[in-house]
Amino acid sequence: MTRVISLVTDFGLTDEYVGVMKGVILCHCPTIQLIDITHSVPPQDILFAARTIASSYPFFPEATIHLVVVDPGVGTDRSILLIEATNHLFIAPDNGVLTPILESDQIQRCFLLEKPKDMNVSPTFHGRDLMAPLAGRLAAGMDITDPGQKIDAADCCHIDLPKATVRADTIVGEVVGIDNFGNMATSISAGDLSQFSSDITVLVAGTIIKGLSRYYAETAYGKLLCLIDSRGYLEIARNCGNAAVLLQCKVSDKVTVQSNHLLK
Amino acid sequence: MTRVISLVTDFGLTDEYVGVMKGVILCHCPTIQLIDITHSVPPQDILFAARTIASSYPFFPEATIHLVVVDPGVGTDRSILLIEATNHLFIAPDNGVLTPILESDQIQRCFLLEKPKDMNVSPTFHGRDLMAPLAGRLAAGMDITDPGQKIDAADCCHIDLPKATVRADTIVGEVVGIDNFGNMATSISAGDLSQFSSDITVLVAGTIIKGLSRYYAETAYGKLLCLIDSRGYLEIARNCGNAAVLLQCKVSDKVTVQSNHLLK
Amino acid sequence: MTRVISLVTDFGLTDEYVGVMKGVILCHCPTIQLIDITHSVPPQDILFAARTIASSYPFFPEATIHLVVVDPGVGTDRSILLIEATNHLFIAPDNGVLTPILESDQIQRCFLLEKPKDMNVSPTFHGRDLMAPLAGRLAAGMDITDPGQKIDAADCCHIDLPKATVRADTIVGEVVGIDNFGNMATSISAGDLSQFSSDITVLVAGTIIKGLSRYYAETAYGKLLCLIDSRGYLEIARNCGNAAVLLQCKVSDKVTVQSNHLLK
Repeated sequence: MTRVISLVTDFGLTDEYVGVMKGVILCHCPTIQLIDITHSVPPQDILFAARTIASSYPFFPEATIHLVVVDPGVGTDRSILLIEATNHLFIAPDNGVLTPILESDQIQRCFLLEKPKDMNVSPTFHGRDLMAPLAGRLAAGMDITDPGQKIDAADCCHIDLPKATVRADTIVGEVVGIDNFGNMATSISAGDLSQFSSDITVLVAGTIIKGLSRYYAETAYGKLLCLIDSRGYLEIARNCGNAAVLLQCKVSDKVTVQSNHLLK
Repeated sequence: MTRVISLVTDFGLTDEYVGVMKGVILCHCPTIQLIDITHSVPPQDILFAARTIASSYPFFPEATIHLVVVDPGVGTDRSILLIEATNHLFIAPDNGVLTPILESDQIQRCFLLEKPKDMNVSPTFHGRDLMAPLAGRLAAGMDITDPGQKIDAADCCHIDLPKATVRADTIVGEVVGIDNFGNMATSISAGDLSQFSSDITVLVAGTIIKGLSRYYAETAYGKLLCLIDSRGYLEIARNCGNAAVLLQCKVSDKVTVQSNHLLK
Repeated sequence: MTRVISLVTDFGLTDEYVGVMKGVILCHCPTIQLIDITHSVPPQDILFAARTIASSYPFFPEATIHLVVVDPGVGTDRSILLIEATNHLFIAPDNGVLTPILESDQIQRCFLLEKPKDMNVSPTFHGRDLMAPLAGRLAAGMDITDPGQKIDAADCCHIDLPKATVRADTIVGEVVGIDNFGNMATSISAGDLSQFSSDITVLVAGTIIKGLSRYYAETAYGKLLCLIDSRGYLEIARNCGNAAVLLQCKVSDKVTVQSNHLLK
């Protein structure tokens, strides 16, 4: 079976760091499928990486090994986690970057990586010296129980994930990401909105957008719109344009949804 | 046989969209060779993507599946095309992005993808939910005639491609692309120029460049030059420098070539 | 055996050049592992590329073919090199980009590529038309002695690599690279520093940094620090911040290390 390793890092694509990690993996497992999810996580942005891996992993084959290296605490005594959940494996520093996985009800087993005694480990690049070798050895067939000590998911580091506050006729959330198109993802899920009809009013950055579209070109060229994005969350977008630039929005800006029954 | 899928999108490399599409493909065909051509097509720029795939596909192995996802009309009733040409396969929305393939004399068969009835399809990410699964299934051996209904290439959407106006002693074209080095590709082909000797004068952005070089370092360091680029088109460049920045040029700027027989 | 080809270029990721080179390689060797080290070498920056490949190749499997295409002299009579060193292969223009390999004591054999007579070679894209086919054919099993004429490493083009000046109580070096995090790599090696204790004072851009940390989070949040980086060189960094932006530093800025025995 061809195994897959996905990679999420904040290393960027200019330095050799990503290539070096892949070289290390290939030394352990030359037939691996290496798939970049992103290396453009803003430096040290654990929440961005957490959101990225949570949105990505369900689309990968079972038994994929997801390597998430956003690691400002490298060299300290923070641990390295190996988690099995929904038949995927996740390797990351224990700094909260796997919070969405840890908080899902699909988690199966958690392990802390025990540092190999015989390895030369740089105190500033555990991606290369600890996590990539672990991923490569797992891909090559090492048993998941080998790397370390079993722990409870509740004992791992968790971060606060943006949520929405849902009331009878209003939902308050926030912008959680702005994509390459300027589409603004929010913390308001389709489930949060399920109590409302599509007859809603969205307030963001002093602007009002009415109604819920299904796709971008359903509105006129250049117009703002709201829809449920491909991740299942409310998105504020602009047909053939950049909503975030137009609205001068940034991550964590407030988004309010009102049911128009209230407004009438 | 190891199959190849190439990818051209306007998704950028910061969001997880490209990785997610690859994950979906791997679910269907784990041994595929996935090759990024570019994910930096400017958002919604169908012409840029058309030019990119036309310049790239001839260098790939036969039977490569080229997936071109620049799709501002996602969710509307625009169709998804599967085209066989020169023993390559192309999958893209029917919005003109495959115009150079459709207008070549190498086209073999065109199909419209019929939407699978049993799939959960996001109205905003057909790359993930329709085109990637189609590419993966074709790579895994599905027959090309399975996905849909045969149509005529002439009935597909076409866009206008930049051309050159060729007269006896003058050719008028335009800048069609500016690359990473600041080299400016034009719509004037080597064939258009074949009526002239290399004793030409090129006018662009108020600047005159004389003669046709063969390679960059044939001129002095920092000097402007013209040559036939590796795609077979007239290029305006600067030896060890950025011509587009120096000339403050942009795509669609006019380029005029005069035969110096006229000037004498 | 699955072979690996790594790629270092200054092509960027927006144009189709990298994808086209990979397509050409796949025509010769469809089962190859293609690994991007970087395509963001600044245009024509031979020293940057030399440093990148030197820092990367030791982490790749033996018999990896490293393709380094930074080639301002393309089309001139500069040669193309094939070098075997430490059981790796390197292909690059003979412009000094392989200097760190040529100057290592691990070099085994050097060859000049003889231009194939029967090929259509663009004078501006030898990466596509000469170096990628060579890499692909070597990966597919061609003997290393086939491509050309044996030469001596000393007869290849060399560039000056930044070094450090080491005196009894002072070392003077320079900034050689600034990474995605704003960490500033220097030309001062751990070996250069081995004569000193960790009780040092580093002067850079008018700022003094005292002591040698082991990792970033050993200092307070936002503070400047020095450490030995994962390549084995002195690095100036900032815990969870960008040192280069804070210090307004650039490549080639002077860095001075003093032993504090002198200062006391």
